[in-house]
Amino acid sequence: MDIIVLKQGATEEEIRHIVKKLEGRDLKANVSRGTERTIIGVIGDTSKVSEEEEDAIRAAAGVESVVRILKPYKLASREFRKDNTEINVKGTVIGGSRIPVMAGPCAVENKTILTAIAEKVKSAGAAFLRGGAYKPRTSPYSFQGLGEEGLRYLAEASEKTGLPIITEIMDPRDLDVIVRYADIIQIGARNMQNFRLLLEVGSARKPVLLKRGLSSTIKEWLMSAEYIMSRGNHEVMLCERGIRTFETATRNTLDLSAVPVLKQLTHLPVVVDPSHGVGKWDLVAPMAKAAVAAGADALIIEVHTNPEEAMSDGEQSLRPDHFEKLMEELRNVAASVGREI
Amino acid sequence: MDIIVLKQGATEEEIRHIVKKLEGRDLKANVSRGTERTIIGVIGDTSKVSEEEEDAIRAAAGVESVVRILKPYKLASREFRKDNTEINVKGTVIGGSRIPVMAGPCAVENKTILTAIAEKVKSAGAAFLRGGAYKPRTSPYSFQGLGEEGLRYLAEASEKTGLPIITEIMDPRDLDVIVRYADIIQIGARNMQNFRLLLEVGSARKPVLLKRGLSSTIKEWLMSAEYIMSRGNHEVMLCERGIRTFETATRNTLDLSAVPVLKQLTHLPVVVDPSHGVGKWDLVAPMAKAAVAAGADALIIEVHTNPEEAMSDGEQSLRPDHFEKLMEELRNVAASVGREI
Amino acid sequence: MDIIVLKQGATEEEIRHIVKKLEGRDLKANVSRGTERTIIGVIGDTSKVSEEEEDAIRAAAGVESVVRILKPYKLASREFRKDNTEINVKGTVIGGSRIPVMAGPCAVENKTILTAIAEKVKSAGAAFLRGGAYKPRTSPYSFQGLGEEGLRYLAEASEKTGLPIITEIMDPRDLDVIVRYADIIQIGARNMQNFRLLLEVGSARKPVLLKRGLSSTIKEWLMSAEYIMSRGNHEVMLCERGIRTFETATRNTLDLSAVPVLKQLTHLPVVVDPSHGVGKWDLVAPMAKAAVAAGADALIIEVHTNPEEAMSDGEQSLRPDHFEKLMEELRNVAASVGREI
Amino acid sequence: MDIIVLKQGATEEEIRHIVKKLEGRDLKANVSRGTERTIIGVIGDTSKVSEEEEDAIRAAAGVESVVRILKPYKLASREFRKDNTEINVKGTVIGGSRIPVMAGPCAVENKTILTAIAEKVKSAGAAFLRGGAYKPRTSPYSFQGLGEEGLRYLAEASEKTGLPIITEIMDPRDLDVIVRYADIIQIGARNMQNFRLLLEVGSARKPVLLKRGLSSTIKEWLMSAEYIMSRGNHEVMLCERGIRTFETATRNTLDLSAVPVLKQLTHLPVVVDPSHGVGKWDLVAPMAKAAVAAGADALIIEVHTNPEEAMSDGEQSLRPDHFEKLMEELRNVAASVGREI
Repeated sequence: MDIIVLKQGATEEEIRHIVKKLEGRDLKANVSRGTERTIIGVIGDTSKVSEEEEDAIRAAAGVESVVRILKPYKLASREFRKDNTEINVKGTVIGGSRIPVMAGPCAVENKTILTAIAEKVKSAGAAFLRGGAYKPRTSPYSFQGLGEEGLRYLAEASEKTGLPIITEIMDPRDLDVIVRYADIIQIGARNMQNFRLLLEVGSARKPVLLKRGLSSTIKEWLMSAEYIMSRGNHEVMLCERGIRTFETATRNTLDLSAVPVLKQLTHLPVVVDPSHGVGKWDLVAPMAKAAVAAGADALIIEVHTNPEEAMSDGEQSLRPDHFEKLMEELRNVAASVGREI
Repeated sequence: MDIIVLKQGATEEEIRHIVKKLEGRDLKANVSRGTERTIIGVIGDTSKVSEEEEDAIRAAAGVESVVRILKPYKLASREFRKDNTEINVKGTVIGGSRIPVMAGPCAVENKTILTAIAEKVKSAGAAFLRGGAYKPRTSPYSFQGLGEEGLRYLAEASEKTGLPIITEIMDPRDLDVIVRYADIIQIGARNMQNFRLLLEVGSARKPVLLKRGLSSTIKEWLMSAEYIMSRGNHEVMLCERGIRTFETATRNTLDLSAVPVLKQLTHLPVVVDPSHGVGKWDLVAPMAKAAVAAGADALIIEVHTNPEEAMSDGEQSLRPDHFEKLMEELRNVAASVGREI
Repeated sequence: MDIIVLKQGATEEEIRHIVKKLEGRDLKANVSRGTERTIIGVIGDTSKVSEEEEDAIRAAAGVESVVRILKPYKLASREFRKDNTEINVKGTVIGGSRIPVMAGPCAVENKTILTAIAEKVKSAGAAFLRGGAYKPRTSPYSFQGLGEEGLRYLAEASEKTGLPIITEIMDPRDLDVIVRYADIIQIGARNMQNFRLLLEVGSARKPVLLKRGLSSTIKEWLMSAEYIMSRGNHEVMLCERGIRTFETATRNTLDLSAVPVLKQLTHLPVVVDPSHGVGKWDLVAPMAKAAVAAGADALIIEVHTNPEEAMSDGEQSLRPDHFEKLMEELRNVAASVGREI
Repeated sequence: MDIIVLKQGATEEEIRHIVKKLEGRDLKANVSRGTERTIIGVIGDTSKVSEEEEDAIRAAAGVESVVRILKPYKLASREFRKDNTEINVKGTVIGGSRIPVMAGPCAVENKTILTAIAEKVKSAGAAFLRGGAYKPRTSPYSFQGLGEEGLRYLAEASEKTGLPIITEIMDPRDLDVIVRYADIIQIGARNMQNFRLLLEVGSARKPVLLKRGLSSTIKEWLMSAEYIMSRGNHEVMLCERGIRTFETATRNTLDLSAVPVLKQLTHLPVVVDPSHGVGKWDLVAPMAKAAVAAGADALIIEVHTNPEEAMSDGEQSLRPDHFEKLMEELRNVAASVGREI
């Protein structure tokens, strides 16, 4: 049910016009005349009313505002599915009581470094290897990733360590090649509303990690998950990685309250990326612990054997020894909230 | 020249290490020891220092922060080209003393409506016909545009009225077909950092209108223009269309100060879209006039013969009679700042 | 009329409980049971429902959200008063067809400089002299203003030039002294929600210029105007001076769309301060012109004979010759929208 | 040391002029001429350069920007005091290894309710009683607090339970009366830059809890702490309570990364207020746990025996049973990071 608030002084003809419009869409109108405002309650399956029809009603003469009561997403909503979605990737479950940690370098640089990092994070207890072969970079003059070569290195590191792989897609034309190598496909923050890309991964048979856009509301984020799910791929996890605010002390503002909010609104697993959230390695550990305490289902953390030589985001990468220490601390925090790493 | 600020207590060894790193990149280091901080001035062509190298320096032991003095974009900068870039599209110049207005519906819905709108905006004095055939929509259940059919309708309306066409691209795979029909290719706000798409239109031989991302800084926006230009396409115009802030009285916050800021930083033409900026038709006229007074080189405005029946963004579309009145008002404002519509 | 949206699965008992609560406040409840949600329309004078009662309803079992239809401000609303409020200060009207310009230094520094500036802005056509005697400064170690001495200099400069004075109040304890000297009392952005100060100036018999808070919504701003008006002082003008966003190219983001939005919501005059809005003197002129084109009723602009020696905000002050040129340009823009300076 | 970046093409005369200015302030200038830019390193005690002098340099001909290297706050900085400040309030230490919890209603409503709540939070393990006698409210028509009567009720509840009191000050004229009753004086978010109020509490001999402003940067927040400390009162604690962003799913966005950032920048204790941060009681518990995991030194939480009847902020208040459960959970999380509640 939706509500249409009319302007003070809306005429009877304007009201009739709107009621007729609604009836033409198989909806019933419940007109309530108050002392200061008249409102129209819209009864029926208003979820079929599209954004453009809503816009049209908003543009009608006499209308002040339209309040939508129903959520615009369905498949992603907690109402649609009461139980938490658990995504099983080669035996590791995301969305259950265990909290898997995805770790690795921001970008794949070469085979030797990648394998070294993979072995380190594996031995520290990571459950997935992360690493970008296709990198979205602000500058056209920056390193853009190794492409398929990088995917091959990831596959080799995965074979050596047994860690499944998560890697980012930037272009629908890369889907086929990425699907061949990746265990989880990542959609980056800048592509959260790249709707063509969402539809494309929606038709893939691989779990998707959908990062929140820099200035996306939680509702828009769930709508983007809905895009993927509407194509049949229901294995979507949502990754909070910081939003853009006025504060510049951190690279972004990690919105940890998104974790419990999402747990109420959706059945999909919630992942937190403290590395991009704060952008400085020495702030990663406290925020990773806070994410676990807030109820995150998984973490994704940047680790590099030599952050200073990293070709991307070195400043926010943990060294393996720091990562190992963090994993121990995370085990304690997870236990304190009844979960395990 | 860039500046590296060291932490209080940075050791001599840490300083030597950084200096050596810089020299390895053919840069000279000028170490200044203050009473409270030591800073290193980096001398040489630091524009070649990539983001990742900068990150690496930031991650080095002893470093507190790195201040980049030079702008990270070149081709787009006013330093690179002192004179304003003028883009000539079928005889109409964008970036000169005349301020062309691009007008039309948000989405192309059908041939009859589109032609009717095209004729109306033409007679009111518009210089371009706008209309989306591929529409980025928040919901997967909303109208996504007519695709190539929509492009054909645009072409027919263009032929009838003589108005050149501007239309949006969402997917690199659509470039070939869009290039056949469009006179200006539009990159929407949500794709401002869809770097693959930027590179793709960078290799096209068509002018590009690049909308500002919802939460993009002016610097990031210019970097995205640089992406396009780096591929050889220098006919880029920048379109302010509102940024996301905490204020909800308007759909977005139209940042008109971006107009004079851009006129200082870049030689590229600056366009303003008041329709998306405010999201309500009755606020469009004052903001269009303000944009002209602030120095905009062109405007892009949504017009629909029947906003209430529009399939997209009806609420923010002007009716032709309002548009006609606005065009007259704009002529006065333009004249008052020494320009013409 | 307000609307209470219930959670899916709200029980009949919960509904009865809410209905009873409303009836206890002399309101009638109109319960509509939809297929997915039940909503309660609240009929009666809901403007008497305070924030805390609204909170209480929100906290009641079974409630998902409360939608308030009526505006929380009354005296400030356009519904309360259809005609524009015109404020007459010593013969100069703010809110009429003329657009007065208030100009002067950020802070009053000494008598000689102030008088020199006052004479310059007077001869360029300014209608008011601005200048701070009490200065809100981010740092306790910065110049905090001359206090009453500064007020005396303002009074002398006013006597010489005939320009009425606008100056800022920071502390309720300073009201008596400021009222003796000032013609308009300014409430700065940082004090927009200093409610005690608002009540205090509400009981003064002087016009008040209320600056928008850095992160205040237009609604909150109007509520602060309501605070002043609720004490009997209806001569309030609203001054847009830029809001805080993620963009750092300008000091703040001047939200010019607030001008037409306010003209719809309120009868109070709207003033624009482009100097604080952008923070750089060479961006002031285009934004001042844009403000006039957008419908501003007055402008307030910083002018200093020697910006480089100014004790506060030098960077954003115009030199008298630039101000004179701007005034001429503003006359043209004002004429183009049917007004005068 | 600070850095002045000159515009491309700055003249020798402009450079000489700036150098002379600096020398007049007993500073030395180190001019470095790069290929694209000249920069001036400022050597000497630049902490004495005030904001207004910095502005003046920015306004000087030839200057592009000024980069300040030194932090503008001193007494509040970690450099000034290496060890954490511990504030002892009637035997309870804030800033030590124990994490005290301050709990109670948003506003003091009457003696019976307050005492009931005080007893409940005491028995659950709270260390302080919070409650507002002077309430900042958006609307002039809302309950503004009981004033001194409320303070007396707080004192009685304190006597009964042994819990020290924290309560808010809004007006410098209330200082004397508040000091008589309160153990900690709270400065609310809206008054974070009410500089007169800061100076006033700076001369009191009571610990101060300084809430972060809705849109205040961490740097501005520390400057406000510096205001208080500059008057001799060094017992200041900083309370994160959510910042304003575009997201509307929560009342504010709780910026937990501020906790580790502050622990690096300052020696002052850091408190977190999850109730105002999220604004919904069912999100308070996860965020309280996250705050502890992130390193908070204390928490402040709203508790009400009957949230639905609360006269202020009912929606975000925990019921005593929920609070009791939360306290148990917090004990576990605190232990997992080596601390106690």
